[in-house]
Amino acid sequence: MSGGILVLNGPNLNLLGQREPTLYGNQSLEEINQELEEMASATGIRVEFFQSNHEGELVDRIQQARDDFELIIINAGAFSHYSIALHDALRAVNLPVIEVHLSNIYTREEFRHQSLISPVAVGGIFGFGALSYRLAFLAACEIIKKGVRSKG
Amino acid sequence: MSGGILVLNGPNLNLLGQREPTLYGNQSLEEINQELEEMASATGIRVEFFQSNHEGELVDRIQQARDDFELIIINAGAFSHYSIALHDALRAVNLPVIEVHLSNIYTREEFRHQSLISPVAVGGIFGFGALSYRLAFLAACEIIKKGVRSKG
Amino acid sequence: MSGGILVLNGPNLNLLGQREPTLYGNQSLEEINQELEEMASATGIRVEFFQSNHEGELVDRIQQARDDFELIIINAGAFSHYSIALHDALRAVNLPVIEVHLSNIYTREEFRHQSLISPVAVGGIFGFGALSYRLAFLAACEIIKKGVRSKG
Amino acid sequence: MSGGILVLNGPNLNLLGQREPTLYGNQSLEEINQELEEMASATGIRVEFFQSNHEGELVDRIQQARDDFELIIINAGAFSHYSIALHDALRAVNLPVIEVHLSNIYTREEFRHQSLISPVAVGGIFGFGALSYRLAFLAACEIIKKGVRSKG
Amino acid sequence: MSGGILVLNGPNLNLLGQREPTLYGNQSLEEINQELEEMASATGIRVEFFQSNHEGELVDRIQQARDDFELIIINAGAFSHYSIALHDALRAVNLPVIEVHLSNIYTREEFRHQSLISPVAVGGIFGFGALSYRLAFLAACEIIKKGVRSKG
Amino acid sequence: MSGGILVLNGPNLNLLGQREPTLYGNQSLEEINQELEEMASATGIRVEFFQSNHEGELVDRIQQARDDFELIIINAGAFSHYSIALHDALRAVNLPVIEVHLSNIYTREEFRHQSLISPVAVGGIFGFGALSYRLAFLAACEIIKKGVRSKG
Amino acid sequence: MSGGILVLNGPNLNLLGQREPTLYGNQSLEEINQELEEMASATGIRVEFFQSNHEGELVDRIQQARDDFELIIINAGAFSHYSIALHDALRAVNLPVIEVHLSNIYTREEFRHQSLISPVAVGGIFGFGALSYRLAFLAACEIIKKGVRSKG
Amino acid sequence: MSGGILVLNGPNLNLLGQREPTLYGNQSLEEINQELEEMASATGIRVEFFQSNHEGELVDRIQQARDDFELIIINAGAFSHYSIALHDALRAVNLPVIEVHLSNIYTREEFRHQSLISPVAVGGIFGFGALSYRLAFLAACEIIKKGVRSKG
Amino acid sequence: MSGGILVLNGPNLNLLGQREPTLYGNQSLEEINQELEEMASATGIRVEFFQSNHEGELVDRIQQARDDFELIIINAGAFSHYSIALHDALRAVNLPVIEVHLSNIYTREEFRHQSLISPVAVGGIFGFGALSYRLAFLAACEIIKKGVRSKG
Amino acid sequence: MSGGILVLNGPNLNLLGQREPTLYGNQSLEEINQELEEMASATGIRVEFFQSNHEGELVDRIQQARDDFELIIINAGAFSHYSIALHDALRAVNLPVIEVHLSNIYTREEFRHQSLISPVAVGGIFGFGALSYRLAFLAACEIIKKGVRSKG
Amino acid sequence: MSGGILVLNGPNLNLLGQREPTLYGNQSLEEINQELEEMASATGIRVEFFQSNHEGELVDRIQQARDDFELIIINAGAFSHYSIALHDALRAVNLPVIEVHLSNIYTREEFRHQSLISPVAVGGIFGFGALSYRLAFLAACEIIKKGVRSKG
Amino acid sequence: MSGGILVLNGPNLNLLGQREPTLYGNQSLEEINQELEEMASATGIRVEFFQSNHEGELVDRIQQARDDFELIIINAGAFSHYSIALHDALRAVNLPVIEVHLSNIYTREEFRHQSLISPVAVGGIFGFGALSYRLAFLAACEIIKKGVRSKG
Repeated sequence: MSGGILVLNGPNLNLLGQREPTLYGNQSLEEINQELEEMASATGIRVEFFQSNHEGELVDRIQQARDDFELIIINAGAFSHYSIALHDALRAVNLPVIEVHLSNIYTREEFRHQSLISPVAVGGIFGFGALSYRLAFLAACEIIKKGVRSKG
Repeated sequence: MSGGILVLNGPNLNLLGQREPTLYGNQSLEEINQELEEMASATGIRVEFFQSNHEGELVDRIQQARDDFELIIINAGAFSHYSIALHDALRAVNLPVIEVHLSNIYTREEFRHQSLISPVAVGGIFGFGALSYRLAFLAACEIIKKGVRSKG
Repeated sequence: MSGGILVLNGPNLNLLGQREPTLYGNQSLEEINQELEEMASATGIRVEFFQSNHEGELVDRIQQARDDFELIIINAGAFSHYSIALHDALRAVNLPVIEVHLSNIYTREEFRHQSLISPVAVGGIFGFGALSYRLAFLAACEIIKKGVRSKG
Repeated sequence: MSGGILVLNGPNLNLLGQREPTLYGNQSLEEINQELEEMASATGIRVEFFQSNHEGELVDRIQQARDDFELIIINAGAFSHYSIALHDALRAVNLPVIEVHLSNIYTREEFRHQSLISPVAVGGIFGFGALSYRLAFLAACEIIKKGVRSKG
Repeated sequence: MSGGILVLNGPNLNLLGQREPTLYGNQSLEEINQELEEMASATGIRVEFFQSNHEGELVDRIQQARDDFELIIINAGAFSHYSIALHDALRAVNLPVIEVHLSNIYTREEFRHQSLISPVAVGGIFGFGALSYRLAFLAACEIIKKGVRSKG
Repeated sequence: MSGGILVLNGPNLNLLGQREPTLYGNQSLEEINQELEEMASATGIRVEFFQSNHEGELVDRIQQARDDFELIIINAGAFSHYSIALHDALRAVNLPVIEVHLSNIYTREEFRHQSLISPVAVGGIFGFGALSYRLAFLAACEIIKKGVRSKG
Repeated sequence: MSGGILVLNGPNLNLLGQREPTLYGNQSLEEINQELEEMASATGIRVEFFQSNHEGELVDRIQQARDDFELIIINAGAFSHYSIALHDALRAVNLPVIEVHLSNIYTREEFRHQSLISPVAVGGIFGFGALSYRLAFLAACEIIKKGVRSKG
Repeated sequence: MSGGILVLNGPNLNLLGQREPTLYGNQSLEEINQELEEMASATGIRVEFFQSNHEGELVDRIQQARDDFELIIINAGAFSHYSIALHDALRAVNLPVIEVHLSNIYTREEFRHQSLISPVAVGGIFGFGALSYRLAFLAACEIIKKGVRSKG
Repeated sequence: MSGGILVLNGPNLNLLGQREPTLYGNQSLEEINQELEEMASATGIRVEFFQSNHEGELVDRIQQARDDFELIIINAGAFSHYSIALHDALRAVNLPVIEVHLSNIYTREEFRHQSLISPVAVGGIFGFGALSYRLAFLAACEIIKKGVRSKG
Repeated sequence: MSGGILVLNGPNLNLLGQREPTLYGNQSLEEINQELEEMASATGIRVEFFQSNHEGELVDRIQQARDDFELIIINAGAFSHYSIALHDALRAVNLPVIEVHLSNIYTREEFRHQSLISPVAVGGIFGFGALSYRLAFLAACEIIKKGVRSKG
Repeated sequence: MSGGILVLNGPNLNLLGQREPTLYGNQSLEEINQELEEMASATGIRVEFFQSNHEGELVDRIQQARDDFELIIINAGAFSHYSIALHDALRAVNLPVIEVHLSNIYTREEFRHQSLISPVAVGGIFGFGALSYRLAFLAACEIIKKGVRSKG
Repeated sequence: MSGGILVLNGPNLNLLGQREPTLYGNQSLEEINQELEEMASATGIRVEFFQSNHEGELVDRIQQARDDFELIIINAGAFSHYSIALHDALRAVNLPVIEVHLSNIYTREEFRHQSLISPVAVGGIFGFGALSYRLAFLAACEIIKKGVRSKG
């Protein structure tokens, strides 16, 4: 079945709510996904979730998304900053991509100031904690409505 | 009167809709502001708009915002990349700041890859065209609701 | 009224003739403009002049030029090296731009070796003092004659 | 009337006393100027004050200073780090310049470690809060007494 | 059983033929492998193929190759540019390595201009699409014929 | 069961004793672990060992360690130099970390001079071959004795 | 007469076989050319050879190749790393170019890691000694067969 | 015979009109020289032309110019960016030098953004195609009229 | 006896008055110290002087200052730019430090643009020749009056 | 008398216990040396201690060590990061060297991230406070036992 | 005939005595060669001289030197800083090389601070004007006397 | 007594002949000095020698040289690369300086490629072992004969 949004989360995001709450907030990833799930059923858009600490599993999942989804929301976590493999997978799959970060990566270590996801994304949202995901979901709905498929 | 959101736009954003539409979209700044105005009246939050091509006028406006607003949404345009004066004004005024960019600045010239607004912002949204502003407005509403005042 | 050449001068160029004559020559900006005025009336091309020490005023003036002029000659002075706002304004206004410098910027401080005007200019002339402007004017006449409007 | 000292302050320095007091101290700019005013009348040296958040206004003011003042004391604030226009104006006006900073700019963000005012200044004073200005004023008096006019 | 050539392909190369054909060509990885298989049976050299999007699986496969193969042909794809683990595995296994790239990596993004495979390879071939593999196979045959085992 | 030390080894360290013995020594990883095992039983401290060539498996293992161990000894091998995911996992798990390297990484390739493990470690030991592990184990025992749990 | 392959060799390659044989092998350039000559006559493709230690002579020869050849194989030797003139000549002549290096330039001095030939080449082969040329010749034959003329 | 202008052209400029016309225009070098020849006879100034793809020939020609010419116009092409030998020759010959470029070198590859001719030139003209030469010739005439001989 | 100011001078400052007077002025270090001595007795503050060309002696002297002085004025001369040992000593001794330079180090060689003393100083004064010391002394008096002991 | 271990400490380490205890711990250098002394007598290995704030004295001491010691343990403190003279002395004396740091230098200022001691050391230990020395001593004993004399 | 010294001079050195005498001295190259000639006949060593502005001619001359000379003295002038071809030729010819510079290249433009000749030279002499050559000749004689042939 | 040559040697040069003979040769510093002594008495020029491992002692010695010597020959050893204090002392003393290095510092570690002595030296000699000193002595004699005293 085609259509719908794939929400991807990279390494250590499974720890959300437990790990460094002043930096990443108190909500668990399940709670965040739950909120997106509710937004999705309200709008009738299918949504699926996938988290992995393994770069290869994320690449595999992105490749499979081509025929099943219309858009990818991704918080690649640490992989954002060095995984050219994820960058290539997202470019190859040719779906619109929305980049999400919980924290403001530009106020952290210098090695987090550069994202390899940004160049293959339509746009991005950073720094709003769990709200970043919900805003990304709203953006995704608008993009899907417009039928914009190519990232151009 | 205290409370409300100040929406600031920097140089050349008054040309929106006329200038390089493939890059910046077809909507004029007035149309974007109109949309935000409508969102504002729907939520009962006061909103004001200010655009200038003059760095000094933006600094002045930010300084005056301290007692009149609860939050600043800013698309500083070209100033994002070199105006330490704007950076300092935003830091001094000590209100939460949301950074907005119409285009994906990370796929453009290298001198646009670094923002001096990001380090003083809560978070940011880039690449969604006019939608970037509406998402920023939603984020602003949530932040105001939580009564988060310090950027900490 | 459409057509004609707009000659823009940036900060401190109002001091020409008084300031560091070994570097910038003895002619005042008024005298240089007078020479261009004479060249203009000889060729029947309308010319207007604008100098400002304020980046914002130059951005404003460039924006207004869109419908009134066919070409811009600009010596952005110090702004050449850091004003992305001027760069953006010139790109947005989509007229052919000719860059002028009185001195040879490549034999001066390293921070003057890079120009943000060059990437949005058709071409440039540097190092010939007041003569730089007259050569730029000749180039402008040829470009206008050919009806080349887009900088492409 | 020739002679006297011009004290210039750049962007956001009008907020002194209100903004980040742990960094910039509790005295307002008016109180600092008042102290300098008193030192001036004690020594019979004329002093004038000018603050602006607009780079262009500072450039204008420096240009006018040439015939009216013997020396400039300047805290260019954020402009210290990127305004080549101010650098050029100070060089053009050919008066001795004393650079002032309230905070120790070398213990702050890396983009504040370089000053474009330093290369055109006789000398500078940083890190002593309001005292920096008073020391600069003393230095100014000594320089004027010696009749040193060219910065050489 | 010792002897033979191991052909390794890194992340996203399983998409060959489907993904960005102007960049990577129309042949699938299976078709390329088929061609190499035919060359192998013609020359009587055993060949095996392995592709993975998982860095760890490639490292595992390289480690196991030590006793079973005489030479490795590798297109590490995105991993070429950041996987020090692959670099170490290839160095540890001490077999001659031939580096392959479909595209001319030197005309692409700057982060693809450096390869961590090159320093541990005998030599490399880039830019000829599927032909790159066949040329690598020919080189492999010659190297095996000469009995050169150490990369020294 | 809480308490005890987790000893982690990254990619290619399973080849110890076989791979480049002049660089890494003749002892196998099993022999090294055996020595640590003996030191552990002598001191009554529980110790567990885990080696993987897969970054994701190491991240998973670190995450699970939170409730089961008091301290992590890690030789991340090649991952030390680029795996921000490991860095994040170690930071998230909030146990004291001791970094180990067999060789003196500062006399090798420049890309090995920087470690992303160091910033999240209490301290580190490099260059002593298998002895590096035994010294790390002694350090671990002292740290556990002092009950230092937070890396602060 | 149009058609055929031009094989160019840059400075010091005339010394092949005599100079640093551990680095460059024992075969002389004449012997290598002889091998290519034989491959050429076997396939009926015309081949010509030119070596020079003079950058200008290589530029001249490339310019003349436009009408006489279908493809250029070039080992520009030391010129690969700094001759923008050769880069420009190859770009101007608009024939497919194949880059060859005897040694693995990426394991040598850092100033040999960058090639100005690569950006104007279809692809390249490095590190296989004299075999590099023969592989390049095979690649050339395939490219000519496909009638690919533009490097696009 | 002393006096007159020497017009020098560097590598690949003999291909003008044939090579990449969108970048360099349709006029051949002969046609450009013809235009300059006509301007020269109109003003009674002697002009000579020399083009070479050989750096050494250009150095030789510059050295001989000392007693025969009053000024050098040079488009050093690719040599502009790396030939210190040309830089030295121009400095040694101590005639005023005017730098010319057909294209806007500042919108091209980064290795063309720096010119070694600029530091030894009076001034330069870039980006106007064949017109760049004619403007340079006009500048040359003015400089000769003023009897400015030293570049100082 | 506690209290008082320690005035430290680094290498070659014993030559003051003899060495490069256009750069460093005509006053000897003894004369400068004499002036400070007089200011000290006028204010009743104890002052001591120490100059050395030996980094180790300066470190020793700083260490001993901890219990005997309230503040250190230091012109570390050449050591300012590379002596991490002095930086550490000043940090360890935990007294307020005032940095002094006779010349404007920011208009000299690039290796003098960075000071390792600045990060451990309250503030600094540069470029006023012998006057720099007297201003530093005034600043010292004010700081001591306020009882500020920690540099924080 | 030959044999034994020389323990060297660089500048400011004589302040241990007094200076920044959160960074360097509460133990004095004497107490640390006392512990090593005890370990030494337990193992029958001779140990000597030397601390200096003077680079030259440390160089002298290292030179004299050649015939009297089998191994050097050194915490060069601030000198670690810039003293090429110490680097050379350690290399010249040709004894095995063990590098020690109390703090984790990789989490401090960037100028402490590079050590000139590391390239001439067998290995190093950092971040464990006084324990770093004791671990170094254990390493030293093992190295001496093995009779490894050359650092090779 | 084997044996003897080849003295090579690069571009613009034929102008010696005429060009920038404050930098390069008043002696012509012929006079310098004459002095060396006399030193040669006094010692019975054969000497030959070659100067060229053409990089290729110098490469040719170096290649031919292999069998005819025992040592090369070279002042490569501007080529010192970018000619990898000369570097390669000198390395290939495997004779001891002595580098000479008339001026102190380390006090001139930054692009002259690096020499590609140094890495292939035994040693070098710079800054003594014509004397540099005579000292090089003396060094050459000593090296030849010792029969040192390989540069090792 | 004025006149004569001061020969200075920096850290670790007292070990000459013992330390790394393949790099520095077999002659001791005493033997080298003996040779210079003999050359000195042959020419009637007074010579004195001073070696120290202490930067401060070298600075002191240079300062005292001003009235007693006409020229300084210095091999600053490791200090060449970081001692700004020595640089300043040599500049202050205003005698001609000749820089000497035994080894070819440009073929060693990158941190030895830059010398702070070079900018204050007349010229230098590197790479000839003990011969470097004798050549420097000859250069010194010639410079003294010419009465060149200022380094200008």
